[in-house]
Amino acid sequence: VRIPHADTRLYRVPEGAEVVALVMLSDILPTGFECGVLNGRVAPGSTVAIVGSGPIGLAALLTAQFYSPGQIIMIDLDDNRLEVAKRFGATHTVNASGAEAVKQVLALTGGEGVDTAIEAVGIPATFLTCQDIVAPGGVIANIGVHGAKVDLHLETLWSRNIAITTRLVDTVTTPMLLKTVCAHRIDPKRLITHHFRLDQIQDAYDTFGHAADTRALKVVIEA
Amino acid sequence: VRIPHADTRLYRVPEGAEVVALVMLSDILPTGFECGVLNGRVAPGSTVAIVGSGPIGLAALLTAQFYSPGQIIMIDLDDNRLEVAKRFGATHTVNASGAEAVKQVLALTGGEGVDTAIEAVGIPATFLTCQDIVAPGGVIANIGVHGAKVDLHLETLWSRNIAITTRLVDTVTTPMLLKTVCAHRIDPKRLITHHFRLDQIQDAYDTFGHAADTRALKVVIEA
Repeated sequence: VRIPHADTRLYRVPEGAEVVALVMLSDILPTGFECGVLNGRVAPGSTVAIVGSGPIGLAALLTAQFYSPGQIIMIDLDDNRLEVAKRFGATHTVNASGAEAVKQVLALTGGEGVDTAIEAVGIPATFLTCQDIVAPGGVIANIGVHGAKVDLHLETLWSRNIAITTRLVDTVTTPMLLKTVCAHRIDPKRLITHHFRLDQIQDAYDTFGHAADTRALKVVIEA
Repeated sequence: VRIPHADTRLYRVPEGAEVVALVMLSDILPTGFECGVLNGRVAPGSTVAIVGSGPIGLAALLTAQFYSPGQIIMIDLDDNRLEVAKRFGATHTVNASGAEAVKQVLALTGGEGVDTAIEAVGIPATFLTCQDIVAPGGVIANIGVHGAKVDLHLETLWSRNIAITTRLVDTVTTPMLLKTVCAHRIDPKRLITHHFRLDQIQDAYDTFGHAADTRALKVVIEA
């Protein structure tokens, strides 16, 4: 492989690091961290909700814990993924959509809503949930890749001192994340559920394509 | 007048200050400054567009200049108000709505759009203009009091590293603004176009109610 401008695009694998764990740093961890956690200003003791417990939402969940928030509420429709979220450090899980999810999050936060609502799906319904659960003064940090416009309820939000952020990951935090891996502050291998050899790649695609059944998060191909 | 908790709600008029100028500090200047300029992160050399050249947009225009932005583009449909904006320090004015306004702002900014788009109207059309003129990495700072939801074009904005902010003025910056008035960094009296005695208050309402004809910005009632 020839890498143009490699001096500014590659990082040396730290001594003793497991290469397979570092595959998760190529974009999934920086995406959850930069677009969700940093933009969402997760802070010690704060309340966080992550809408979407897929690999990106889970990456946000893992990296949110760097900042010791008080509550991390994971919201999804798939109990398997919520169970994973619980093991990964979620303090609460909510299996519901729309108004029911909102009701549960408000109940968990004394009626106030969350300081940080991370959107990790990319559809109008989940972005709406974020608007309904964000507390006054809070942030909605969008990670989702949206294919359509969404409704923004400025008729209620105009006076609530909120911020909405978007970001395309640029991996500027990769050096920082490498340090957290070496210091055992985070174990990105937990996102890897399946391993395949290169000659099994068709099985790998099938496994990832039926994630609800196979419980696949991230699939690694080895030579 | 009896003021509850006056110690935390009142400010002493600085010696030598003109009381009539300070009337503008009761909420119009802090609103433009806090919700527009501070939330919009106006910075030296940056490009700013203010959509709406009414009193609140003009208050944002006056206070944006504290931070020495490179361009301040005022957008409105009323030539009289744009003329005022020019006198108040706008570097450019655009009399247009929708796609035409967008085209002109992009031409003024080398095709990039603005670092800060301040929404000072409060309707879907002007919020849409802000989305169309904000540069990647920029901020849309909403001041407008909206009565209806708006379209948010996340299908284009999700990857553009933008922020959208809302805020209800809390006048926390009043002490700072008082200092800028005393230091002659800003002259809030410029927002006052008409003076009436208390017994002329009906005329004052009529004047303010027909601002397009009377060119009224702010009307002061004196005893």
